[in-house]
Formats: sequence, C-alpha cells, structure tokens
Amino acid sequence: MHRTAQHKHSSQPMEPRDPQWQEKVRGSFARQKVMTLIGAELVDVRPGRCEIHLPFRDELTQQNNYFHAGIVATVADSAGGYAGFSLMPPGSDVLTVEYKLNLLAPGEGERLVAIGEVVKSGRNLVITRGEVYAVNHGRSIHCATMQQTLMTMRDLAKEKQV
Amino acid sequence: MHRTAQHKHSSQPMEPRDPQWQEKVRGSFARQKVMTLIGAELVDVRPGRCEIHLPFRDELTQQNNYFHAGIVATVADSAGGYAGFSLMPPGSDVLTVEYKLNLLAPGEGERLVAIGEVVKSGRNLVITRGEVYAVNHGRSIHCATMQQTLMTMRDLAKEKQV
Amino acid sequence: MHRTAQHKHSSQPMEPRDPQWQEKVRGSFARQKVMTLIGAELVDVRPGRCEIHLPFRDELTQQNNYFHAGIVATVADSAGGYAGFSLMPPGSDVLTVEYKLNLLAPGEGERLVAIGEVVKSGRNLVITRGEVYAVNHGRSIHCATMQQTLMTMRDLAKEKQV
Amino acid sequence: MHRTAQHKHSSQPMEPRDPQWQEKVRGSFARQKVMTLIGAELVDVRPGRCEIHLPFRDELTQQNNYFHAGIVATVADSAGGYAGFSLMPPGSDVLTVEYKLNLLAPGEGERLVAIGEVVKSGRNLVITRGEVYAVNHGRSIHCATMQQTLMTMRDLAKEKQV
Repeated sequence: MHRTAQHKHSSQPMEPRDPQWQEKVRGSFARQKVMTLIGAELVDVRPGRCEIHLPFRDELTQQNNYFHAGIVATVADSAGGYAGFSLMPPGSDVLTVEYKLNLLAPGEGERLVAIGEVVKSGRNLVITRGEVYAVNHGRSIHCATMQQTLMTMRDLAKEKQV
Repeated sequence: MHRTAQHKHSSQPMEPRDPQWQEKVRGSFARQKVMTLIGAELVDVRPGRCEIHLPFRDELTQQNNYFHAGIVATVADSAGGYAGFSLMPPGSDVLTVEYKLNLLAPGEGERLVAIGEVVKSGRNLVITRGEVYAVNHGRSIHCATMQQTLMTMRDLAKEKQV
Repeated sequence: MHRTAQHKHSSQPMEPRDPQWQEKVRGSFARQKVMTLIGAELVDVRPGRCEIHLPFRDELTQQNNYFHAGIVATVADSAGGYAGFSLMPPGSDVLTVEYKLNLLAPGEGERLVAIGEVVKSGRNLVITRGEVYAVNHGRSIHCATMQQTLMTMRDLAKEKQV
Repeated sequence: MHRTAQHKHSSQPMEPRDPQWQEKVRGSFARQKVMTLIGAELVDVRPGRCEIHLPFRDELTQQNNYFHAGIVATVADSAGGYAGFSLMPPGSDVLTVEYKLNLLAPGEGERLVAIGEVVKSGRNLVITRGEVYAVNHGRSIHCATMQQTLMTMRDLAKEKQV
C-alpha cells in the first residue's frame, strides 16, 4: 500500500553571497532604461525573491487595449532575473539563458504585479519561477506564469559568451 | 509608498466536471503500456492533482546509472497530463500540446516521485506544473520542474488535430 | 544497414484562409501601441511568415546598453504571432498561448531583425518559430531563438478564455 | 523603403574539439540502458548533428496505441544531447539543462526518427533544435519540435552541480 509522500522542494540556502545584494539589485534595475521607458517599479527585493509593479499606460497595450504580452514578459523576466541576481556572488552579473512563459489571462487592469522566486540556485545556473498578476479594479488575476534559467557571469569581461 | 501585495493564484474551481473522473484517469493510465514497461505506479489522483511513483530499475538509466532524463520527463508529463485530465468533461480526452522541463539535479535514488498540479483550467487549454523528486536513501531531492500546456479534446474523432 | 533518412517538415498548406490576410495583419500591428512606443516596424508579411525590424534606441536598453531581453522577446513574440495570424480564418483573432525563448548572444547593434515562421498550422493551434538577429555594423548576429504556441480565437467575444 | 534582409544563423564553427568525438558519442549512447530498453538506434552522428531511430513496439504506446509522448521526448532529448556532445572538448560530459517540446501530431507509425542539430555552441552552454518524425507506411509526419539547452560539464567530478 502506498502513502502519498510529502515532498518539499530541496531547501535552498536562500542566503545572499554578496553583502551588497540589495544595492546591487537596485543599482542594476535603475540602469535598465527600458524599465524607465515603461514605468516599472522595483517594489520589493529579498534574497531569492523580487517584485516589480507596472502601472497601466495606454502606450503599453496591444490591439485590445490590454497590456501587451511582450510587456508582461519583460516584467516577468526582470523579476525572475533579479530574484536570481540577489543570490549571486560579488563581482558577478546575471544573464537570462532562456525562459518559457504561459499567458493565462489577458493583462487587463490598472497594474501588473510580477513576482520572481528562485527555485534552485546552482553554482552556475539559477532556475526561477515568475508569476504575473493583473490587478483589475483591485482584484488580482493570475495572467502569466514563467519558468526561467539564469547564468551567473563571473568574469564580466566574458559577458558575451554563453 | 508601496506595500508588497499579497497575490494568490486565481482560485481555480478544482471541481471535476466528470463524476467518473477517477475511473477515467485510472483507466487511461492502465492503458498506457509504456507505464507498465517502465514500472510506473499511479499512487494518487485528486481533482487537479496527480502523483506517480517510479521505482529504480537498472534499465531506466543513462550512462551514469541515474534515471534517464527522458524517463524523468515521461513521469512528469504523465503526472501533469492526468492532473489536467481529472478536470476535463465527460467524453473528452487529454492531449499534451507542449511542455518545458528543467532538470535541477541528477535522478539518483531508489524512486522517482512526480507530482502534477493544475495551475489554470480553461475552456480548451489546461496549464499545469509538474515537480519530480528523486528519493535517495529516503531523502527527497527536487530533480526536475515542468510547465505544461494540455488541450481538451472534446470530439475524440478529431483527436489527430491540434 | 541504415541509410540516413531525408525527412522534410510536413509540407504545410501555407495558404491564407482570409483573402484580407495582409490588411488584417497590418491593421492589427498598427493598433499595438507598444510597437509605436518602441519604434518597431512591420517590414514584411507573407502567408506564414512575418519580419519586424527595431532600430536601436537608448531607452530600449538594459544595464550594459544592449537591447533589453524583454524587447528582444517582444519583437520575437510579435513576429511569430503575426506569422500565425496571417493564416487564420476571417473573423478570428490570434492569442499567444505560450512561448520559450533562448537568448544566444547580446542584443548589441543598430537594429534588431525578428523573423517569425509557422511550423505547423492546426485547426486550433499554430506552432511557430522565431529568430532574432542583432545587426551590428552591418553584420548580423543570431541573438535569440523562440518556439511559440498560438491559438486561433474564432469567436472574438470569447477572447478572454483560453 | 525597406528591403527584406537576408539573415543567416551565425555560422557556427561545427568543428569537433575532440578528435574522438564519434567514439565518445557512440560509447555514451551504448551505455544508456534505457536506449536498449526501448530499442533506439543511433543511426548517424556528425559534428553538431545526431539522428536516432526508434522502431515501433507495442510496449512504447499510450492509450491510443501511438508512441507515448514521453518516448517521443526521450529520443528528441537524446538526439539533441548527442548533437551537442559531439562538439564538446575532451574530458567533458553533457548535461541537459532544460528543453521545451511541442507535440505537433500523434506519434503514429512504424518508426520514429529524431534529428538533433546544434543551433549555437557556446563556451558553457550549447543550444540545440530537435525534430521528430513519425514514419507511417513510409510517409514521414513531423510529430514534435524541441528547443534545448545543454551544459558542458568540464570536470566530471562536479557533475552533480548545475
């Protein structure tokens, strides 16, 4: 007879390896001009977790006046990337290797909320999950889910190599 | 000033639409001969959730004597597929449209445990998440994570069309 | 003895089902305000193929002054989406179900070129491939590759349902 | 006025870095017991390309007597993995980081043919594409398409770390 097992994700040491992790993340975010262009805000960052908000603007829409999928992806990718970056060692940078995004519902509402969380932090690769919610008249709808692979770029001079 | 929002996944009605959901899932699993070939067991199924176990066998390995990634994927895909199938209406079948799998750690141990869960159950498409754990000397290691899209095939005669 | 087989992709009928396919695609593109915001141009559209160009602008960059990955994804997603839309029947709309994007090289240069092509056009789902090139001093570097699932939305009133 | 650009994939140096590349690939394939279990054959391997065939067997099927999606994925993953491994330096091993697979048509027929090809061979990561065809009464149907990320494991003692 089987019992249904209780399995937890391998408990990751969500300990930042860089004491400057918060400044590092906030500084990098501030240098991403596209975040300014679209009006994204880094609302919260913790070791292994990052939350980005994006207020609605007419110029961020697709043909039905919802947030464009590319904009949903941009905030999901950034939230996942900074969640991973918060755990990376000093002197390193973060590179998105790839991600996969499912769009679950239209990005309709006054604000997008993207939350990135680290699933596994390896020596070279960091795997994250990202969820995006559209807040519509105060109600939060799950509008996208993402699975992402990041790479720790140790030597910044080699940044172009994957 | 921002407060960090509390966002929950849109609460899905994890209500089965087919009163025969359990027999349907168990019957379909029993007809998948590849499950018999590899020795997979359907340990638990609930509306929107499915758990499959796979005991180690030498013939399921890759070159380093771990579970082969294809086998890890097979149980992840099946767990996600049956999680989704449990919610589908009578007379329908389930089709995997696509999935994306990250391998997080070697599949090393005496058993694989794959858990599939529905993230969003739409009219035509069902999005699931799958997690695979390798149980090694009783300790559970998170070895793979999957994001999957399923399709509800309403008219079984049209099954070949995606 | 084996001979290496010659296998071609199943020859898709890349016949548009809507005689207005070109106007439909160009009209939809024109209504995507985010394309105007970033400065993307619909350079070429044919049945099952779409090409979008994006000239460099400082405000589209990440922290190293390359095109931001989210922008790369936005043009890849749109190129794939319009490649698929060009084959869809009259009265339908296109919805991105999901995509997966690998970033191959930094988006460095004076222009991005995104090319979307249909791999399989099914009754409900359309699978596409997208390639993005960064043109740097006239030299074209393959900087991203995408695999995407689209859905044909037949009844526009049901657009919110996936 | 725009001309449609001609863009080629960045021409990869598909030069093997290991003179023993062919023996290495064939030896690793032979040690994968799951390949023997399912009856897969390594039909052709070249630098950056690998072709695997799998004859139909009743025990490889799902509930409708087609090849099970997990089996389709297993041969796609292996074909991509060995395409990448053929280009890796001496003393290294290959690890699948992740892949994404779209199922395009049922795996119905007397044989599966999986072809893996390298899209980009980087210092640490190798990106591949895999296509699977089902040969049915001699006619080849494109039944799956895969996008995959591999990692070069330089120091085999570190194999468990990703």
